[in-house]
Amino acid sequence: MTKPNLQIALDQNTLADAIRIAHFAGSIVDIVEVGTILELQAGQDAIRVLRAMFPDKIIASDTKCADAGSTVAQNSKDAGADLMTVIDSATIATMKSAKTVLDGIQVELYSAWNWDLAEKWREIGIEQVIYHQSRDALLAGEVWGKKDLDIVKKFIDMGFKVSVTGGLNLDTIKLFKDVPVYTFIAGRAITGQADPALAAQKFQDEIKKYWS
Amino acid sequence: MTKPNLQIALDQNTLADAIRIAHFAGSIVDIVEVGTILELQAGQDAIRVLRAMFPDKIIASDTKCADAGSTVAQNSKDAGADLMTVIDSATIATMKSAKTVLDGIQVELYSAWNWDLAEKWREIGIEQVIYHQSRDALLAGEVWGKKDLDIVKKFIDMGFKVSVTGGLNLDTIKLFKDVPVYTFIAGRAITGQADPALAAQKFQDEIKKYWS
Repeated sequence: MTKPNLQIALDQNTLADAIRIAHFAGSIVDIVEVGTILELQAGQDAIRVLRAMFPDKIIASDTKCADAGSTVAQNSKDAGADLMTVIDSATIATMKSAKTVLDGIQVELYSAWNWDLAEKWREIGIEQVIYHQSRDALLAGEVWGKKDLDIVKKFIDMGFKVSVTGGLNLDTIKLFKDVPVYTFIAGRAITGQADPALAAQKFQDEIKKYWS
Repeated sequence: MTKPNLQIALDQNTLADAIRIAHFAGSIVDIVEVGTILELQAGQDAIRVLRAMFPDKIIASDTKCADAGSTVAQNSKDAGADLMTVIDSATIATMKSAKTVLDGIQVELYSAWNWDLAEKWREIGIEQVIYHQSRDALLAGEVWGKKDLDIVKKFIDMGFKVSVTGGLNLDTIKLFKDVPVYTFIAGRAITGQADPALAAQKFQDEIKKYWS
């Protein structure tokens, strides 16, 4: 089974802080993500800087595009993003219009999706979804479980590359061990550590234990 | 019937271009909005500059917050926003957490809402919704009609202040004439005109014809 990617979500409130973490941990991960909070704070400069720092990595822009698909996708692409998220409640028209500009469109699953919609996403050529434990849901006490795994598997069976995110840590990786996850997205479990490079390496080592 | 507000949506690709329009037309409108595209491009500097330019106007941040409600709301508030949008597919936990930080939370209606959810929004104290013809839906040929008006009226009956947006122009204002709309949000019908100040004034004059 192909080793899932490790994606670091940079969701700092300042570009300086995000760059500090990226400088140390960026070379260890497979995908560097400009998180929504960071992008709202610093604008497309955040994408530009990280693109320039990591010319050989995949750069993901967690834009959560909801409308004006082609404009937003063009802006993300111009700044250097390879991947961009759209929100599940965006219309099919919006997703389609984003996809004409940037191939790497990922649908972020919040509360607006269902299996019929997912079929439509496949029909317009969307290849990636992000299954997501909301930060606020996690704060409200929800945890990863069988229900989540079954959903992830079903999306994979439909042909999607599935990224998983939301409160992942070293202990949760093994829950997915028989599942061909495309990407694990880790935020504070890496960025919040005193040594983010070491934390990223531990994630990579843990992933390699189960997928190799 | 109280005169609805006129809100200008600044959705330019550069802060310079948005400021040019705001400089001429901002003093004529009631609410100055930092549009999503602009915010993604320029970051929170866009809010800061417009707040400083218009200390007495309402400043709206069309953030379309989907997660991390309190962090995103705090950042918007710190930059000077009075109002901030959350996306309809955000969880109730996210909306609640945003609302603890910034009272002026507006739910932007895409495809994820229903009346049961709207009841829940009322229960957690959300007072505003934005009824929305998607830009991409408009491009696909959809237009304002009775169905839209009925939805707007029902939200108002539930006690929401309702802003309407999406392809509004001088001809569409009168469609709402017996409806106590809270705010009309105009984008390119003002910002795309050679004289945005004149265009904004024409909107205000048209609104005053029916609500005074």
